[in-house]
Amino acid sequence: MARKKMILDLDTGIDDALAIAYAVADPTVDLIGIIGSYGNVYVEDGVQNSLKILELLGATDVPVYQGLAHSSESDHFDRMPISAEIHGQNGIGEIDLPAPKRQPETGDAIDFFIKAVEKYQQDLILVPTGPLTNLDEAIKRAPNLVNQIGNITLMGGAVTVPGNVTNVAEANINQDATAADHVFRQAPLTQVGLDVTLRTLLTRKETQQWRELGTKAGQAFADMVDYYIKAYEVTSPDLHGCALHDPFAVGVAIDPSFVETIALNMYVTTDEKYYGRTTGDPARLAEPNPNVKVAVNADVDRYLASFMEHLTGLFAQK
Amino acid sequence: MARKKMILDLDTGIDDALAIAYAVADPTVDLIGIIGSYGNVYVEDGVQNSLKILELLGATDVPVYQGLAHSSESDHFDRMPISAEIHGQNGIGEIDLPAPKRQPETGDAIDFFIKAVEKYQQDLILVPTGPLTNLDEAIKRAPNLVNQIGNITLMGGAVTVPGNVTNVAEANINQDATAADHVFRQAPLTQVGLDVTLRTLLTRKETQQWRELGTKAGQAFADMVDYYIKAYEVTSPDLHGCALHDPFAVGVAIDPSFVETIALNMYVTTDEKYYGRTTGDPARLAEPNPNVKVAVNADVDRYLASFMEHLTGLFAQK
Repeated sequence: MARKKMILDLDTGIDDALAIAYAVADPTVDLIGIIGSYGNVYVEDGVQNSLKILELLGATDVPVYQGLAHSSESDHFDRMPISAEIHGQNGIGEIDLPAPKRQPETGDAIDFFIKAVEKYQQDLILVPTGPLTNLDEAIKRAPNLVNQIGNITLMGGAVTVPGNVTNVAEANINQDATAADHVFRQAPLTQVGLDVTLRTLLTRKETQQWRELGTKAGQAFADMVDYYIKAYEVTSPDLHGCALHDPFAVGVAIDPSFVETIALNMYVTTDEKYYGRTTGDPARLAEPNPNVKVAVNADVDRYLASFMEHLTGLFAQK
Repeated sequence: MARKKMILDLDTGIDDALAIAYAVADPTVDLIGIIGSYGNVYVEDGVQNSLKILELLGATDVPVYQGLAHSSESDHFDRMPISAEIHGQNGIGEIDLPAPKRQPETGDAIDFFIKAVEKYQQDLILVPTGPLTNLDEAIKRAPNLVNQIGNITLMGGAVTVPGNVTNVAEANINQDATAADHVFRQAPLTQVGLDVTLRTLLTRKETQQWRELGTKAGQAFADMVDYYIKAYEVTSPDLHGCALHDPFAVGVAIDPSFVETIALNMYVTTDEKYYGRTTGDPARLAEPNPNVKVAVNADVDRYLASFMEHLTGLFAQK
C-alpha cells in the first residue's frame, strides 16, 4: 500500500518536536513537508527548530517552509512569556543542536500546501499543531481544498474541559480565534484538544529509556522532554507528567481508533469575554453530517505504547 | 415487572409541566412524588402549578412537597424577568387552571426524598429539572444516598454547546452553581443538558394535534406550549421551535438509549467570570469510572415519537 502523504504545520516547541519524531518514525506515512507557524516560538525560530530536529533524526529530505508570522487579527506577534517557561527560550528546552545544514525553502508555504492538496487529494493528511492562521489563509486562497483533502487532524481547543490560557481558551486557538472560527465552520476536521491530550502523559521513566539508548537523538529528546516535564510540574502539578499534545494529533491522524469522537457542527468564539472557546453551534445542531469530529476520550495505554515504540525505535538508530 | 419509582424535582414552568405529563403517561414508572424548587417561578407558585397540572391530568394521588426557596449561596430568590417572558407571569403560559383541590404536603421535601431513597434504593429514579439546591441539601444530610439511589437524570448545564444565560452557564445550574458543583463531584448522574435538549424541538404542528383532541388537557397544553413557542421565536429564532428540556430528561431517565453519552469526571465553575460552567475536571480526567454520563447526541426522531405517543395518548383521555 502506498504511504499516505503528511504535512505538519508546527510552531516548533518541544511537543512539536515529538510530533516530528512520531511522523518520521511511522512506516505508513511519508512526511512531505513542514510549514512553520508562530506560537510557542517566533516563526523563524520554529523553522530553525524544525530543521534541527529533522537533521537530528536523519530526515534531511523533508522541506521546511516558513508560514505566516502572526495572527490574522494582528500585524505582529509577541511571544507570551509562559511559552519560554514551558518550551525554553530557544523553544526546544535549551538543548544545543548544531545549526542545520539544510536551509528553509524559499517558496511560499501556503502555496506549497495548496499544491500538495491538488496533487495528493484524499491521500494527503494535514496536521496543524499551532494556530490555524496558515490553514485559514490556504482556504481563503483555495476554498475547494476543504472538499479535496483527505484528512485534517489538528491539535487545538478544548470542548469538554477548561482551556489552558483562560477557562475557555486553549493556547493554539487563542492565538487566532478568527482564523480558527473560519476553519471550524468549513473544513472537515478531527479535533484533538485538551479533552484528550491532557490524558496522554509522559514521565521521566520514559525519558530515562531514551537516555539509556546512548544515542545523540535519545540524549537530546530526553533532555528536551525533561525540561518540559519540569515546566509541567510548576504549571500543572495535578497532572504528574507532561501532556503529549502535538504527537497525539499525529498519532490520531494516522490511526483514528486511538480516540472516541463525537460529531458536532462547531464555531469558535471571538467575543473578548469568551475569546477562543471551541464549542457546538446551537444554530446548526440539527444539521446533518457535522464537519468536526471532537475527540472526547482516548485509548491512552495503546497510544503511549505506540508512541514509545515509534520514538524509542527511531532514537535507537540516530 | 414492578414499575420503577420516580420523583421529579421541578420549578414548574411550562417544560416542567410537560415533564409531569411524560412521567404520568409512562406505563413503566410510578410517579411517587414531586419536590418543588425555585427557578422558572417562585417555589410556592411552582408547587401550585404542579398540583394544577397533576389535577388536570387526573393524577391526584401524587404528593407535592415544597422544597428549598432559594440558592444555597443566598438568603432569597429574585425571579429573573426573562423567566416570566418565557413561561408567563404564572409560569404556565398564562393559562387559567382551577385552584387545585389537593394541598401541598406539610412534611419536609428533603426528608421525603431521603426516605424514598432508603425505601426504594436502586428502584428509585430522581429527575431534577431545576436548580440542584434540593439534591445538594439531601446529600449533605444523607451522604450515602449517592451510593443507594438507582438513577439520577437531570436537566441542566451545557458541555459541548454555549449556555443560555451566559456563554458558559445554563439557567438551572446558574441558579446555584455551588450546589451543582457538590452534586456533579459526588453523585452518579446522567446529564441531559442543552447539548441535547436544543435538538428536541416541538412546533405548532404538534400542539395543533393536542388542540384537535377536544379535551381539557389537550387544549390547556396546546395553549401553554404555544405561549412557550412564541417566546422561543423571540429569544431563539434560529431554533424554529421550542426545546423540550425537562421532558427529555424524564424520557432519558426511563430509556437511556435516547441519547449517546460520554463518561466524564466533572465540576462546576463557581468563579464569577465563568460562573455555572459544567465541565470536565482536568485533575481527574484519568480517574477510572467517571460518575457523570454527559448526553452529547440524541435519537431525536425516536424521542419525539415517544413524546407525542405519551402526551397525546394521555391528553386524549383527560
